[in-house]
Amino acid sequence: MSGQNPDNPAAQPALAEASRSGEFDLIARYFAPLAGPGAFGLGDDAAVVTPGAGRQLVFTADAIIAGVHFLTDDPADDVAAKLLAVNLSDVAAMGAAGLGYLVTAAWPRDLEEAWIARFAQGLAEAQAEHGVALLGGDTVATNGPMSLSLTAIGEQPIGAALRRNGARVGDDIYVSGRIGDAGVGLRILRDGLTGGAPAERQMAIDRYRRPRPQLGLGRALPGLASACIDVSDGLIADLGHLAEQSGAAMRIDLEKVPVSPLADLIGGTAAAIVAGDDYELLFTAAPADEQRLGEAAAQSETDITPIGRVEPGQGVSVVDGDGEVVALKEAGYRHF
Amino acid sequence: MSGQNPDNPAAQPALAEASRSGEFDLIARYFAPLAGPGAFGLGDDAAVVTPGAGRQLVFTADAIIAGVHFLTDDPADDVAAKLLAVNLSDVAAMGAAGLGYLVTAAWPRDLEEAWIARFAQGLAEAQAEHGVALLGGDTVATNGPMSLSLTAIGEQPIGAALRRNGARVGDDIYVSGRIGDAGVGLRILRDGLTGGAPAERQMAIDRYRRPRPQLGLGRALPGLASACIDVSDGLIADLGHLAEQSGAAMRIDLEKVPVSPLADLIGGTAAAIVAGDDYELLFTAAPADEQRLGEAAAQSETDITPIGRVEPGQGVSVVDGDGEVVALKEAGYRHF
Repeated sequence: MSGQNPDNPAAQPALAEASRSGEFDLIARYFAPLAGPGAFGLGDDAAVVTPGAGRQLVFTADAIIAGVHFLTDDPADDVAAKLLAVNLSDVAAMGAAGLGYLVTAAWPRDLEEAWIARFAQGLAEAQAEHGVALLGGDTVATNGPMSLSLTAIGEQPIGAALRRNGARVGDDIYVSGRIGDAGVGLRILRDGLTGGAPAERQMAIDRYRRPRPQLGLGRALPGLASACIDVSDGLIADLGHLAEQSGAAMRIDLEKVPVSPLADLIGGTAAAIVAGDDYELLFTAAPADEQRLGEAAAQSETDITPIGRVEPGQGVSVVDGDGEVVALKEAGYRHF
Repeated sequence: MSGQNPDNPAAQPALAEASRSGEFDLIARYFAPLAGPGAFGLGDDAAVVTPGAGRQLVFTADAIIAGVHFLTDDPADDVAAKLLAVNLSDVAAMGAAGLGYLVTAAWPRDLEEAWIARFAQGLAEAQAEHGVALLGGDTVATNGPMSLSLTAIGEQPIGAALRRNGARVGDDIYVSGRIGDAGVGLRILRDGLTGGAPAERQMAIDRYRRPRPQLGLGRALPGLASACIDVSDGLIADLGHLAEQSGAAMRIDLEKVPVSPLADLIGGTAAAIVAGDDYELLFTAAPADEQRLGEAAAQSETDITPIGRVEPGQGVSVVDGDGEVVALKEAGYRHF
C-alpha cells in the first residue's frame, strides 16, 4: 500500500497531513490482515507473485462510484464483496482461477471509520470465499463521492484463456445458473417493487448485492467452450459482444432461458434477459462436447442450460416457442 | 476494458445509457490503440500475461483525485504521465522492469472529450518512454471530481525483489539524482513562488509534473542494494520507512544530499529533504559494494550519491558538517 505526497496542490497541508496519518493507521488496522503471501503485510513498495511453471496470469479492473454504481446507504460489506466478485467474474469468464487483487479507495473526508471497518470485513469474507488475497492498493481522501477501483488477478495453464471471439457456426449457446434474479433485486431496492414471497425477494436482493462469480465452472471450461463472457450488461447485450467478436449471429430460444422465479414482476423473460448484473457465464460449445460439458458442470456443481445456437450472420435474435422473432426493448440492444 | 451494468441504483437509466454508450466509443478511440500484447485490443474480459521462465511479477496501485493530488487545470497529458510514472517508481524500487498497467478513470459528466484525448496522449508518451503497455481498465462517469487509479505490473528474475527491510548496520545510504526539484516546482505552481532562472524554474515544474521513475537504476540494484524505496513522501519520511522496516537507525549528512539548484527558494536542503515527489531511489548497500554500485549507476546513466550510514537504533537523524544534529520541520517526521 502506498499513497501520494500529502504536500498536494489543492488541500491545506495541515488537512492533508491529518488525513495522511490516518491512512497508514487504517491500512495497518483493516487491510494489512487481508494481505496475501508476497504482499509483505502491505509494508513495501509492491507485492511479488511468482506464477508456477506453465502458468499464465489474467488481469482485469473495474471502478465503482457511490451514487452511480451503489447507494451510499448500501451495506459497506456488500459493496466490498460485490466489487471483488464482479472482477472475479471476469477472471472466471477467462477460464482462470482467482489469485489476488489490489484495491484503491477514495474515501470522503467525513466517512466514519465503522464504514471502512465493515468494508474490510466484506473484503475478508469475499476473499475467503473465492480463494484470493489482497496484494496491495492505496487509500486517499476525496471531497467528492466515494470512488473505488479493484484490479483482479487470475491464473491458469498457459494457453487456457477463454476468449470472446471463438464461437463457431453450429455451436450451442449455454448460460449458467439463471437470469434476472439480480435485476429483480435491484428493482426492489431502487424502485420499491412489490410482490413475490419474502424468501424469494430476499434471495433476489442477495443476488444483486452479493453476486457469485462462477469460478468453479470457469476453470472447467477451457478445452470445452469455444467462447465465453460473463453476464454483466445483460444476457442479450453480452451475447452481442460474443456475436461481434466471433463474427457470427447468436439466436436464442426465449423459452429455454432459465429465469428468476420472480421474473414476472419485472416483465417476464424478455425483461430478465436485458436486466444485467447476473454474473453468470454465457458460453458457446460444439454439440459434440455436450456430454463432457454436462460432466464439467456437474463437477463444479453448477447448472448450465443450452439456450440457442450460433448461426451465420451477425447480431443477436430471440425467437419464441413458435420460432417467431421476439422484439426486445431497445435497452437489450445497446453496445452492438 | 469493461464497465458495470448501467441499470444502476442512482442514475436515471437514460443518462446512464448515454454515458455508457460513450464509454465504449472512448475506449475504442483513445485507449484500444495503447493496448499491449495479451490485452486483445481491450475487447475481452481480461488480459493475459505469460511471464518468462524464472521470472516473477510485482504489483502496485495508486489512486489520485482532482483537486487533491492534481489540479483540474493541470495538463491532462501530464496527469496521465505522472500517474503512470509514480506507479512505475514503485516498480523500480522493487528492482523490477516495467511490464504493463491497468487504469480506471471516473470522468466528470461534463468533461470535454479533448481532455480525455490528451490524457490518452500522455499515457501513450509515458508508456513508450518506460517500455510498458496498457492491459485493461474501466471508465465510468461520476458527479464528483475526477478520480483515477492505476495498477502497475513489473517483472524481474525470481528472488530479485528489493525490500525495505534489508538494511544492515554499517551499510551506506545512497540516493539517486537530486532532491527538491519537484518540491520547488510544486511551490511555483501552487503558491506562485518567485525567483530562479527561467530555465531552472521550468525544469523544476517539469520534474513535478513529469517525474522520471528510475527503472534503469532499479533493475541494476538487485544483488547490490540491501534495501530500497522510492522517494515519494520526502527523503526523510521515506528513509523513516527503511529504518522502521529494517529495524535500524538512519543517519544522513545534510551537506552530502544532492539538492535542487533552486532549493534555497524553499528553505534550502533542510526543506528539500521533506518536500517529496522526487521519485528518486533511496537505498542502502554494504561499503564493500561501492565500486560495483558505481559501475551499475554508470551503466544506467544515473547519478548516485552516498549521503549517510545505517546505525544501530531506530529512526532518522540528520547531522550538519560539524556532526551536530539538525532539527527538522515536523512534516519531515510524519509516519514514523
